[in-house]
Amino acid sequence: MAGMADPNQIQQDSKKAGLDALLDLLGDDMTRVNEIILENMQSPVSLIPQLAGHIIAAGGKRLRPLLVLASARLCGAEGERQMALAACVEFIHTATLLHDDVVDESDLRRGQASAKAVWGNQASVLVGDFLFSRSFQLMVADGSLKVLKLLSDTAATLAEGEVHQLMTANDTETNEEAYLEVVRAKTASLFAASCQVGAQVAERPDAEEEALRRFGGALGMAFQLVDDILDYTAEVDPKLGKSVGDDFREGKITLPVILAFERGDETEKAFWRRCLEEQDIRDGDLEQALQLLVRHNALEDAKTRAFAYAGEARAAMEIFPESEIRSALLESVDFCVERLY
Amino acid sequence: MAGMADPNQIQQDSKKAGLDALLDLLGDDMTRVNEIILENMQSPVSLIPQLAGHIIAAGGKRLRPLLVLASARLCGAEGERQMALAACVEFIHTATLLHDDVVDESDLRRGQASAKAVWGNQASVLVGDFLFSRSFQLMVADGSLKVLKLLSDTAATLAEGEVHQLMTANDTETNEEAYLEVVRAKTASLFAASCQVGAQVAERPDAEEEALRRFGGALGMAFQLVDDILDYTAEVDPKLGKSVGDDFREGKITLPVILAFERGDETEKAFWRRCLEEQDIRDGDLEQALQLLVRHNALEDAKTRAFAYAGEARAAMEIFPESEIRSALLESVDFCVERLY
Repeated sequence: MAGMADPNQIQQDSKKAGLDALLDLLGDDMTRVNEIILENMQSPVSLIPQLAGHIIAAGGKRLRPLLVLASARLCGAEGERQMALAACVEFIHTATLLHDDVVDESDLRRGQASAKAVWGNQASVLVGDFLFSRSFQLMVADGSLKVLKLLSDTAATLAEGEVHQLMTANDTETNEEAYLEVVRAKTASLFAASCQVGAQVAERPDAEEEALRRFGGALGMAFQLVDDILDYTAEVDPKLGKSVGDDFREGKITLPVILAFERGDETEKAFWRRCLEEQDIRDGDLEQALQLLVRHNALEDAKTRAFAYAGEARAAMEIFPESEIRSALLESVDFCVERLY
Repeated sequence: MAGMADPNQIQQDSKKAGLDALLDLLGDDMTRVNEIILENMQSPVSLIPQLAGHIIAAGGKRLRPLLVLASARLCGAEGERQMALAACVEFIHTATLLHDDVVDESDLRRGQASAKAVWGNQASVLVGDFLFSRSFQLMVADGSLKVLKLLSDTAATLAEGEVHQLMTANDTETNEEAYLEVVRAKTASLFAASCQVGAQVAERPDAEEEALRRFGGALGMAFQLVDDILDYTAEVDPKLGKSVGDDFREGKITLPVILAFERGDETEKAFWRRCLEEQDIRDGDLEQALQLLVRHNALEDAKTRAFAYAGEARAAMEIFPESEIRSALLESVDFCVERLY
């Protein structure tokens, strides 16, 4: 399973794209965002900074706050509003991760013991609630009802997406449409809002706000599809914190599985049902699943969908004139899909 | 244990006060609030209205929305803003209940099977998140940054209180001060905000806003203290949904226990530690706990504290001229403490 379990592997791009360009351009802003994050996770209730610090220090890519800052820069925003709103978006995301710890019973989160494993379910839920509340306090301090509307709508959509995902779990009859709807709600909506809020801060025309919203949404779709593909093809990566087969063992119904199930015969369908619905998983089943995914071209076709979303994201950038920050945003699209190589 | 485990029982008041006066005066408004609640718990994701409906239909007293409406009426508010904000406060409360289901592993909530028992931990967390987000959408639609600040601050305080409570659980060294701080944060803060928001809607002078805030806060303190006393003295009551000894079995450190522990000798302290810290509870232990609470006057003294808060609440009403709605609010204070008889 090294790298790819897929024989039609696309040639690895020798130029390693990444978030470096964004981080170079926005380093000072990100330093300020990290300070705001640190300041705002404080509380006299000591377990809150302890637990929040654990998950926030684990760090991850800070992709969503980077998108807020980059979009604001692209739109020529001045001032500091975008820093607090970037922190706010990261708090919403972190609250979701903490609540996902309960949801997914995941043992690994970004390569570290999950907060739940260290402090228990109850603390994860409640500290998530605190960070979520804190994110609204940051928005209120910012004072824009437009931003408050965007992010409260997004928070409701995120929760709907998570519940919808819960309803599709272990259900092999889930179709591609339902899967994409879940991804749109639970992942793409916050990417879209992160980019849109940057344009709102800069008070740009609706067309630019809309373009950034489309950029973020398509990037988020690509990002999640790639994540779901990697769950069957990646090696354990300490930066990624996922090991191959997590989704399979949890009975998550993702695009590769949906495609292979639809294309499988009755014996294969019975195999998927036993593993994902009944969660009766035996030695060799993961290898069998990978073989079926390859046989039905399911990983390749899922990748094609991810590339299409990446193309949509790039197209949405066309209304903006060329600039360093625009190039860096385009490179973040490459970063997202090149994780597949 | 019928009624009271306490020999110094205060004479039962023959006049049964209650929420009837509030409900009579505010019935039409409450009907509208219930409609808004129903409308706003809808979602295309069917598990959300199912689960939210389950916990919201279980109903409870709707005390917090009643306080919003009553305070708005007391301050002469016109229009409809208070209806949506009353629904918003109930959503925040309901989200807390759903997350408490995870937290407390409670099997009973208002006499019905808890949402968790029916749908699982994960759904409770996520539907709670949805209702919490929805409450912010309602505030944003209302459009007042003042209200948004009050309620987002309150939401953060609630979460801090819940985490603080988690830290004191099973710790018999918890003192009265820490206990009161937890109650102030996890219960009184939302009562206070419910009353204050009514004054904000009516755009009344700061003195009235402050008086209503003090009224709600003191009422909330009394309410929670009474709840914690009832946990050792009440009979199973289908309306209350609690059975005697729940807190004892969960190792919750409440005021009666704190007082009895402080006043106990080493043998008694060892008993409390075994039951509440080690959670090693044997036949007869609850009866033994009750005897210790009575021997050290712990229930009576906790009641005295509750009555003092009720007195503070009544005093805060003094700046308002006499009126039907003021009398009804004072009766709600009686309702709160008369549950002890």
